[in-house]
Amino acid sequence: MSLGIVFLSEVFGTGMLTLLGCGVVANVALRGTKGNNGGFLMVTWGWGIAVFSGVFVAAKSGAHLNPAVTLGLLMNGKAEYAPGVAVDFGSTLTYLGGEMVGAFLGAVVCWLAYKQHFDDEPEPAGKLGTFSTGPAIRSTPWNLITEIIGTFVLVFVILTLGGTPSGLGPLAVALLVVGIGVSLGGPTGYAINPARDLGPRIAHALLPIKGKGSSDWSYAWIPVVGPLVGGALAGIVARIVPIIITAAS
Amino acid sequence: MSLGIVFLSEVFGTGMLTLLGCGVVANVALRGTKGNNGGFLMVTWGWGIAVFSGVFVAAKSGAHLNPAVTLGLLMNGKAEYAPGVAVDFGSTLTYLGGEMVGAFLGAVVCWLAYKQHFDDEPEPAGKLGTFSTGPAIRSTPWNLITEIIGTFVLVFVILTLGGTPSGLGPLAVALLVVGIGVSLGGPTGYAINPARDLGPRIAHALLPIKGKGSSDWSYAWIPVVGPLVGGALAGIVARIVPIIITAAS
Amino acid sequence: MSLGIVFLSEVFGTGMLTLLGCGVVANVALRGTKGNNGGFLMVTWGWGIAVFSGVFVAAKSGAHLNPAVTLGLLMNGKAEYAPGVAVDFGSTLTYLGGEMVGAFLGAVVCWLAYKQHFDDEPEPAGKLGTFSTGPAIRSTPWNLITEIIGTFVLVFVILTLGGTPSGLGPLAVALLVVGIGVSLGGPTGYAINPARDLGPRIAHALLPIKGKGSSDWSYAWIPVVGPLVGGALAGIVARIVPIIITAAS
Amino acid sequence: MSLGIVFLSEVFGTGMLTLLGCGVVANVALRGTKGNNGGFLMVTWGWGIAVFSGVFVAAKSGAHLNPAVTLGLLMNGKAEYAPGVAVDFGSTLTYLGGEMVGAFLGAVVCWLAYKQHFDDEPEPAGKLGTFSTGPAIRSTPWNLITEIIGTFVLVFVILTLGGTPSGLGPLAVALLVVGIGVSLGGPTGYAINPARDLGPRIAHALLPIKGKGSSDWSYAWIPVVGPLVGGALAGIVARIVPIIITAAS
Repeated sequence: MSLGIVFLSEVFGTGMLTLLGCGVVANVALRGTKGNNGGFLMVTWGWGIAVFSGVFVAAKSGAHLNPAVTLGLLMNGKAEYAPGVAVDFGSTLTYLGGEMVGAFLGAVVCWLAYKQHFDDEPEPAGKLGTFSTGPAIRSTPWNLITEIIGTFVLVFVILTLGGTPSGLGPLAVALLVVGIGVSLGGPTGYAINPARDLGPRIAHALLPIKGKGSSDWSYAWIPVVGPLVGGALAGIVARIVPIIITAAS
Repeated sequence: MSLGIVFLSEVFGTGMLTLLGCGVVANVALRGTKGNNGGFLMVTWGWGIAVFSGVFVAAKSGAHLNPAVTLGLLMNGKAEYAPGVAVDFGSTLTYLGGEMVGAFLGAVVCWLAYKQHFDDEPEPAGKLGTFSTGPAIRSTPWNLITEIIGTFVLVFVILTLGGTPSGLGPLAVALLVVGIGVSLGGPTGYAINPARDLGPRIAHALLPIKGKGSSDWSYAWIPVVGPLVGGALAGIVARIVPIIITAAS
Repeated sequence: MSLGIVFLSEVFGTGMLTLLGCGVVANVALRGTKGNNGGFLMVTWGWGIAVFSGVFVAAKSGAHLNPAVTLGLLMNGKAEYAPGVAVDFGSTLTYLGGEMVGAFLGAVVCWLAYKQHFDDEPEPAGKLGTFSTGPAIRSTPWNLITEIIGTFVLVFVILTLGGTPSGLGPLAVALLVVGIGVSLGGPTGYAINPARDLGPRIAHALLPIKGKGSSDWSYAWIPVVGPLVGGALAGIVARIVPIIITAAS
Repeated sequence: MSLGIVFLSEVFGTGMLTLLGCGVVANVALRGTKGNNGGFLMVTWGWGIAVFSGVFVAAKSGAHLNPAVTLGLLMNGKAEYAPGVAVDFGSTLTYLGGEMVGAFLGAVVCWLAYKQHFDDEPEPAGKLGTFSTGPAIRSTPWNLITEIIGTFVLVFVILTLGGTPSGLGPLAVALLVVGIGVSLGGPTGYAINPARDLGPRIAHALLPIKGKGSSDWSYAWIPVVGPLVGGALAGIVARIVPIIITAAS
């Protein structure tokens, strides 16, 4: 498969992910929407189905949609990122690029869908929260640890999915993301994906959003570095621990 | 397959869709019901399972249940609307007619199921909301854009469903509809289906509903035109972008 | 298959249904439980998974769990109630008997599981509501119509499930029951099953429940007759309308 | 398969179970989290997907994750605990050991993920509740009965899962656990698993949790003995009742 198709596939899939994912936060957080104050469970279902939809759209490229997944597969020692896509420097960059571009574009479209409610919302924090995550209690080490643990769970379980027969397809990873959200999303809002957080943050910084505040760049590196460390660790542990190697091969 | 069976299949399927879909709004919105104030997440699950049930009922005709899906398949260049149903002028009209008649009838049965609560509800807006969508903030361009985006997601992801192996059957599209609801339903209540909105609005206008108010005809064209544009765009984009063409073929 | 096994299978399956189904209402309605005031959506998920679990347990006998389903299959003209179980007078009685006995026993076990909370709850209405349904607004004709419509949907969609390939197994009917609950459960609490309502009502009348009130026998026939009419109608309509006959055959 | 792999598999799987399961309680119960007061339905989904994830991770060893399941299979007379793992004294101890170690470790990681919120929470009861279950109304006989009934349902339905064709894989048991939670979790918080309760309770006792109170050791034996009795009973009943023997064979 050509790297151009991989790129396009990840752009569309990750765009679907952040369009629907940022959308559910907008629906819960912005003033006057129909789903205002819909609750945390609704937010986690929204992100879960965002992943679900993105996986269908990006099926051709293996639907990484997440640099932490790409890095996890790399560290796990996979020979291919998807059927017909060898792991090498060029393909790795293609995945990362597609994920970032898609995540940025999805957030832009989400802003268009909720344009009037962004205009109407008086609170800048709610607007940034629609795009990117922020910690409940700010602390560099603990926020990092939470993101590392959450992303470790994501990539580690994904690496075992192939080992259990089921007809769930993309539903398995969607439910996993719902579960990580309700269970490990409490302290930092579960970025667990550098592109999902950084792409929309760049969109927040660039878009002419009425009454927006800071894009909180001082926090921005944590939901990038934490997930990358967690994903890499998951790839390495799954490579070392024999049960997972065997299950996934 | 005869067009009479296609028509009947779409009538029953779309009727099931609006019976259950309008039903969950009635349960949440009308005074004195057991599910009163059940929340937006419950509404989106109700509509998702309404689609799920309708797809089973209308499986023979491919379960379009939605003119935007029919138009999306047409613009995508499909040769058949369902196995044995060629795409032509007559079959297109048959789908659209079945969808509209079914959507109307389902809303009538929903009114019967909740008859006492329609009588008991003092607020006309809640009654109309049970039948048809309305915007949170009224604005022709932005309401159109939101409906276009939501329906684009619906039809675009549906066109990719065939490309990913899973045993989910109608559950995939049901979850997609839940996701569009929680994520993109905030500004306009996600019609994303001209028949789902116009059919029940006609029912609202014709039925002798106690204390009903306006059927809001000035807004009625937006949840028709927006979804048609979004569905057509999705069909065209999926035709042009190579990943989707290949995935769906 | 012997009718003794059919009977036992339906007893266990329907017992699982009312144990879990009555249980979720007890959890939401009785004072001091962990799930108190958990909301209508939680109740509908509880009943949906109650059906899901009952279907697995009673798989051997086709898991009717519901006289309206048995009657619907009979009126649909099926030759067998389950593989190896011919439709005749004796097998019909066996299903109905197993369903009633199971529904009664499941409610008894539910009472044991929540014994302390039944003792602690001051309100008799909440106790009866744990066992059996009651109308939001009492009216013989309209309550009947709502139960007929809800059960028609249940049996009609069940009759089409076989026509659509999917790997959902018992999940399809479970989601359907969740959907009927959120969408059509508002006016009467969706008995949609004579055994589910009458069996626990008999348990309520016979058990030494502390501070219980009336078992509301004047309403008891409606959630029996309504579902039987709805189930029979669904069987007949599905037999007449060609799309369903073909889909299910 | 070597018992070392069985042990490791159960450690990882049960660790995933208590990490995500304790996590969702932390998210709902501890001060200042994003999911604070998210409701009981969210808690039950969290535990359901915790089981879901653990089953994928521990697929190689049959994913018991629960001494009550191990005991149920033993009493049911199974020849193997998993493909290639004969039922004997050594394998039984291996399963129990892996389950306990994993449950302990998962709770430790959960504490790390929510470290700041444990520090910030003023109420000791909420902290213990994150680790282990406690009764709504304390009573040795009734709390035991509730745990016996809940675990009976868990193990009994698991023993029938193999008898019904579906492509649900680990989703079936996940939904079952959601259902037991919403339906039978009201009185005791549904331990239904001795390792899930005792492992985290030991972690609570050993970890330097700021401002923690008692580990409530006087109650600790009930969520161990109750589930073991319930699981053993389920294994025995399923062995005696012919429908289940046949269905599961």
